[in-house]
Amino acid sequence: MTDEATAFVPGHVTGFFSAHSHDDPLQAGSRGAGLTLSHGVEVTVEPSDGTDSTTTLDGDPVEMPPVERVLAGLGVDAAVRAETELPLGAGFGVSGAMALGTALAANTVFGCARSENELVALAHAAEVRSGTGLGDVVAQARGGMPVRLDPGAPDHGRLDGVPARPDIEYVTFGELSTEEVLSGDTDRLSAAGEDALALLAEEPTPAQFMYASRRFAREAGLLTDEVTETIRAVSEAGGEASMAMLGRTVFALGTGLSDAGYDAVSCRTHPAGATLR
Amino acid sequence: MTDEATAFVPGHVTGFFSAHSHDDPLQAGSRGAGLTLSHGVEVTVEPSDGTDSTTTLDGDPVEMPPVERVLAGLGVDAAVRAETELPLGAGFGVSGAMALGTALAANTVFGCARSENELVALAHAAEVRSGTGLGDVVAQARGGMPVRLDPGAPDHGRLDGVPARPDIEYVTFGELSTEEVLSGDTDRLSAAGEDALALLAEEPTPAQFMYASRRFAREAGLLTDEVTETIRAVSEAGGEASMAMLGRTVFALGTGLSDAGYDAVSCRTHPAGATLR
Repeated sequence: MTDEATAFVPGHVTGFFSAHSHDDPLQAGSRGAGLTLSHGVEVTVEPSDGTDSTTTLDGDPVEMPPVERVLAGLGVDAAVRAETELPLGAGFGVSGAMALGTALAANTVFGCARSENELVALAHAAEVRSGTGLGDVVAQARGGMPVRLDPGAPDHGRLDGVPARPDIEYVTFGELSTEEVLSGDTDRLSAAGEDALALLAEEPTPAQFMYASRRFAREAGLLTDEVTETIRAVSEAGGEASMAMLGRTVFALGTGLSDAGYDAVSCRTHPAGATLR
Repeated sequence: MTDEATAFVPGHVTGFFSAHSHDDPLQAGSRGAGLTLSHGVEVTVEPSDGTDSTTTLDGDPVEMPPVERVLAGLGVDAAVRAETELPLGAGFGVSGAMALGTALAANTVFGCARSENELVALAHAAEVRSGTGLGDVVAQARGGMPVRLDPGAPDHGRLDGVPARPDIEYVTFGELSTEEVLSGDTDRLSAAGEDALALLAEEPTPAQFMYASRRFAREAGLLTDEVTETIRAVSEAGGEASMAMLGRTVFALGTGLSDAGYDAVSCRTHPAGATLR
């Protein structure tokens, strides 16, 4: 047992997806595609005696069911500290990142001797059971621009990727409840997601990803007014933008948002999946 | 079409493997495990008019059949420049790195619109057909400490990983022909490789990987005198070392080789797979 361990997990913005429920959380998940970001979550785990097993995000205690499920799955008591520049609940996969980072770091601290796939599966199942996400964890484990060909954890899901690393800008207008959207009727959303995935398969490039994502955002009926307006403004300035699923967040290729006059945060597509520091 | 593109592909040291031949090169390959290295190959591709389609390695023209097969598979004429601190033919997967880096960079330069899996499959098949490697490419596409559960390209092979990023040292005594070893009788080697993979599955940790690799190196009958002596010296100094497959190279965890008095090169387990710069 070491004193503590830290993992970095990239943020993940989903452009489009279809939801696939299953009684087995390892087989439940989503198909779709997204971008992992060089902005992510740094998760540090240290042993706890059970009385101080709190989870903090940027110093503040948080309720984070996926993290608790991961620790329970490993059978350990730990304090989890997460630091991130990304907003929570805005479509950046922060809860998935915390679950996956906890799995990787706790495995090291407590010498659990699990494999990477086992740790990804544990974090994926924890997210699905908590209703906080369906595909962020497997995407964050891969890095780059992950394409989820089949839903589920590593033994079930299949991934591909768009071989490119565009610069990214984003702007956030606030939260959107993943749990609320996913617990509602997802048929229309999923049909649009399947169409978008077929479009991307024809031409796996960043431009086609943005086109398929915009089409999905419109057809899935999740657009808010400020998001619609921002995407249009980027487009009029000659750029490519879409909505982060699920958040009131717009992301753009290159300098699309600042070219359109927005005060955007800039980062890059992350080259790697989640990794121990 | 852009002017040029560059990809970085980590070096890859295989600790143990079993060889699996198949008429379809996408299904041929190896099972086994290894380490990707922060030392790797930087591959730059630019268009050529057919008269200057040379491949260079550290400035010198080289014959590199896997690279030529990748370019032919994409249907493009290109000049390929590779730069590396790793020695060729010493078990670091330099030919696989050149094939994979060429695939990623050429796809960008020529706008081929292939997916990541398609590019990895192309490079894997090029290596297998050239007889220069069986598993480096898929391992180099993943990064970390890749475990090849099943042989073959992405649609066929399955990967897992050891979730750790140890510091690594290596020392090289010279070349060993991959083609020669793989074209000989590989039954004994493959039986030892299957045993080693089972050992690692029991406990996917760096220490167990080194133990399984040493056992494989002995049983496969590939050890040379200087390699045997070096592994023993590291062990006597309290460290963990084994032989890079296939090369007259010894790699060690942490500072194992310098602790034993060797003038070793040091690097780290690379966190990511091959990536565009």
